[in-house]
Amino acid sequence: MNTQDKEPDDKIKLNKVGITDLKTLIKIKRDEKEYWHTPKVSIFIDLPENKKGIHMSRLIECITESLEEEIEEEHYSLENLGKNILKKVRSKHSYQKGEISFVSELPIIKKTPKSKKRTVELHEVFVKVIHDGTWKKVLRVEVIGNTLCPHALEFSGKTHIQRAKGTLEIECEFEKDITLEEMIDIVEESFSSEVYTLLKSEDEAHVIETMHKNPRFVEDVTRRILERSKKFGCRARAECISYESIHRHNVYSEGEI
Amino acid sequence: MNTQDKEPDDKIKLNKVGITDLKTLIKIKRDEKEYWHTPKVSIFIDLPENKKGIHMSRLIECITESLEEEIEEEHYSLENLGKNILKKVRSKHSYQKGEISFVSELPIIKKTPKSKKRTVELHEVFVKVIHDGTWKKVLRVEVIGNTLCPHALEFSGKTHIQRAKGTLEIECEFEKDITLEEMIDIVEESFSSEVYTLLKSEDEAHVIETMHKNPRFVEDVTRRILERSKKFGCRARAECISYESIHRHNVYSEGEI
Amino acid sequence: MNTQDKEPDDKIKLNKVGITDLKTLIKIKRDEKEYWHTPKVSIFIDLPENKKGIHMSRLIECITESLEEEIEEEHYSLENLGKNILKKVRSKHSYQKGEISFVSELPIIKKTPKSKKRTVELHEVFVKVIHDGTWKKVLRVEVIGNTLCPHALEFSGKTHIQRAKGTLEIECEFEKDITLEEMIDIVEESFSSEVYTLLKSEDEAHVIETMHKNPRFVEDVTRRILERSKKFGCRARAECISYESIHRHNVYSEGEI
Amino acid sequence: MNTQDKEPDDKIKLNKVGITDLKTLIKIKRDEKEYWHTPKVSIFIDLPENKKGIHMSRLIECITESLEEEIEEEHYSLENLGKNILKKVRSKHSYQKGEISFVSELPIIKKTPKSKKRTVELHEVFVKVIHDGTWKKVLRVEVIGNTLCPHALEFSGKTHIQRAKGTLEIECEFEKDITLEEMIDIVEESFSSEVYTLLKSEDEAHVIETMHKNPRFVEDVTRRILERSKKFGCRARAECISYESIHRHNVYSEGEI
Repeated sequence: MNTQDKEPDDKIKLNKVGITDLKTLIKIKRDEKEYWHTPKVSIFIDLPENKKGIHMSRLIECITESLEEEIEEEHYSLENLGKNILKKVRSKHSYQKGEISFVSELPIIKKTPKSKKRTVELHEVFVKVIHDGTWKKVLRVEVIGNTLCPHALEFSGKTHIQRAKGTLEIECEFEKDITLEEMIDIVEESFSSEVYTLLKSEDEAHVIETMHKNPRFVEDVTRRILERSKKFGCRARAECISYESIHRHNVYSEGEI
Repeated sequence: MNTQDKEPDDKIKLNKVGITDLKTLIKIKRDEKEYWHTPKVSIFIDLPENKKGIHMSRLIECITESLEEEIEEEHYSLENLGKNILKKVRSKHSYQKGEISFVSELPIIKKTPKSKKRTVELHEVFVKVIHDGTWKKVLRVEVIGNTLCPHALEFSGKTHIQRAKGTLEIECEFEKDITLEEMIDIVEESFSSEVYTLLKSEDEAHVIETMHKNPRFVEDVTRRILERSKKFGCRARAECISYESIHRHNVYSEGEI
Repeated sequence: MNTQDKEPDDKIKLNKVGITDLKTLIKIKRDEKEYWHTPKVSIFIDLPENKKGIHMSRLIECITESLEEEIEEEHYSLENLGKNILKKVRSKHSYQKGEISFVSELPIIKKTPKSKKRTVELHEVFVKVIHDGTWKKVLRVEVIGNTLCPHALEFSGKTHIQRAKGTLEIECEFEKDITLEEMIDIVEESFSSEVYTLLKSEDEAHVIETMHKNPRFVEDVTRRILERSKKFGCRARAECISYESIHRHNVYSEGEI
Repeated sequence: MNTQDKEPDDKIKLNKVGITDLKTLIKIKRDEKEYWHTPKVSIFIDLPENKKGIHMSRLIECITESLEEEIEEEHYSLENLGKNILKKVRSKHSYQKGEISFVSELPIIKKTPKSKKRTVELHEVFVKVIHDGTWKKVLRVEVIGNTLCPHALEFSGKTHIQRAKGTLEIECEFEKDITLEEMIDIVEESFSSEVYTLLKSEDEAHVIETMHKNPRFVEDVTRRILERSKKFGCRARAECISYESIHRHNVYSEGEI
């Protein structure tokens, strides 16, 4: 009898047992384009009270086997790959609830606002697939932007500006059709202005002008993200953190619909 | 009319608005001993749908005023200080729900197991006070230890050993009498062995012996923490993460009672 | 014969062998005031090519013994404590070059610029003591401030502002009388404006006004730090990193005198 | 006249001015294989004492233009791409010394030791190209492994084992033919044992056996890396940090040849 299958000393059910911070290489193919990810992967299953441990190597084997097959069976999204891995786990290890998540980055290619040059922007993304009878997913994007303080502008005519980070997290049934790109768009357009990796002088002037036309608190950014996420018709959580230029600390806002 | 008190564009209630990553200096006096903390402080209140923003500077003022008073009115715990700050906030800013948290470190002085030398061990602690009509608190400790794999020991006679981190988080009514020190004790004794900053050769031999007598999976550590936390009679969550010596990734276990 | 004293397989001298990321509790007493630190300590010595290893536990013992003595023999600075520890190491373990460093935080209490309220500001500090025949020290401070872009201001009348971090590092003989507080002052006054934890509306207006009167590139901040450090008459290195509000990336400048 | 080209207030030459933490997407094609990187890029040039600032957007433009061209002009290594970017910078911005660096990850596909299954291992890599008249490069790899303490094994028959990280950094003329893969190999084989993402029970037994046959201090690992790097005939620096399973702190060793 495997050590894992023995009775544990303390008979308590565990919610999540598995692997975290596993780095691997993943190729996603969608709409004729290839996306390479080197995500941090976590995979967990629950453990009943009468088993000492789970079989960790089976979880990893399911990940590595799913990735080998990728040459044949193309994965068109991280969600889709995650579901395939969990299905394979199910065939090798019993569980009541399983989940797998990927922390990665998504490149978006766009044009600078005035000089119309090509610029590549990378955004942090998080994708989780949950299986507990039904299939669900959690999608999250973290996007850099800025806030220009409306209170100081009103109070003193001048103001302070700073980098901010906006987060949108959606939880929904697996089949719901929502892309990370749409979610990034929503967050980007909720700041005082979008930011760009490349900015020629005329672009920079445009970004500064845009910020001044859209003074926003972190509260405004959070609410705008939520408002624009209503169209998805599912549970959404938004955050904005602002790395204040006049303080050592950060200001923060969170809400959900 | 202050900008903050105006109507927002998007009328959505926000759960948490405030300050995060504020570093400050705090003196706690308990049982004739002084504890100095330089914690990261976060403080949040909710915001109704018809107000554009909260008054951030009032939150900070409540923190700085409470700390000035400390010379007179001694704070005997981070919880107690947190409650005093939230009470002050309540008198300056309306809210339905307020919360304040401190991330800090707690030094424990103990003796090495055999040579009986003095050694100082620092542990990460987290204290949150929540006020929404009633007063609640969340206490969390993160403690370093180790795991020695029972499966490999059975399977091959030899085994692998690694550093691990155990977490215990308790959520309870504010008045409940639980100390961070007790919680640290529970986690430390749940590993294959406790670890020490100072170990002379005889101490090191003792720690190694103890590890070999107590082979533990992360699942075992998590369950032992939970089992020993039952005495508190409140909601407890435990985690163990093991920085595997035979893998690049970590293994993880989580449960709650 | 101890394993450490045996011949190694590969006979190569090593520059630095020791302990890193050791957290401990330190009390410094200076000018009747007590400063509590919970620093990260690193301590290294060199190792000749014919010894397999150093005796790690002796290094730790020297740290713990020096800290026990602190009740009697007061340490009036981290440098002074570091020197005492290295002297003790020297008496227990031969070395050609030894060094010890502390990463900690220093609280500075000051008044807000207009409302004159008390505010506590914490700064990251780094202190290293080096012993290789002579005694030297390295002092470093990392201070938060901001930059307001002079180019955008000239080019478009409006501009962007962001949080920035300035660093000053001094390397000099041990006896040189330089305080971390003086160094923090130099960096703070080199930004477009100082920042504060607490800012009432009139203070905030003052900080914003100050930023607009002092547009600065990261290059300007770095040079101002260096210019003002010339008075110390020793090797100084300065850095400024700016967390741009119009970009995802940071801009950086470094120089030395 | 551009603000950047004006005289600065403090006339001090700066060594490094530029961009840091820029994330982008890079495709490298070598030996018919494609490697996708999403590195953190830093690029710096020096600034003479009589110019107020550098033209930051030109640096970024050189990066984005070089990456657009990649479809035509294939980049076969990060070094080669770095050199192309610096050449382009040279044509748009004068400098005495320029440097560009990439922090990324390299996937290595290998077989598990006994079950011979496919496993993908990711390693942190760092590539810097320096141009100051001549062209030089710095290559660095950071590899996870483990140490098994030889002293405890001798002293008490049992021992402690833990995860460790080994670093090898090579500095040489640009044309020198050294691959990151070779460097990773050198570090991996210097530990008590290699580690693997996937390990079936028989593989795990093999890794444990290998560790026990190769007890190593961090000093041993560092020296072995250096010894095996002598074949490159250039400056090499090695580090090993061990995340001790019996302590809260880490032990560290560094040397160079």
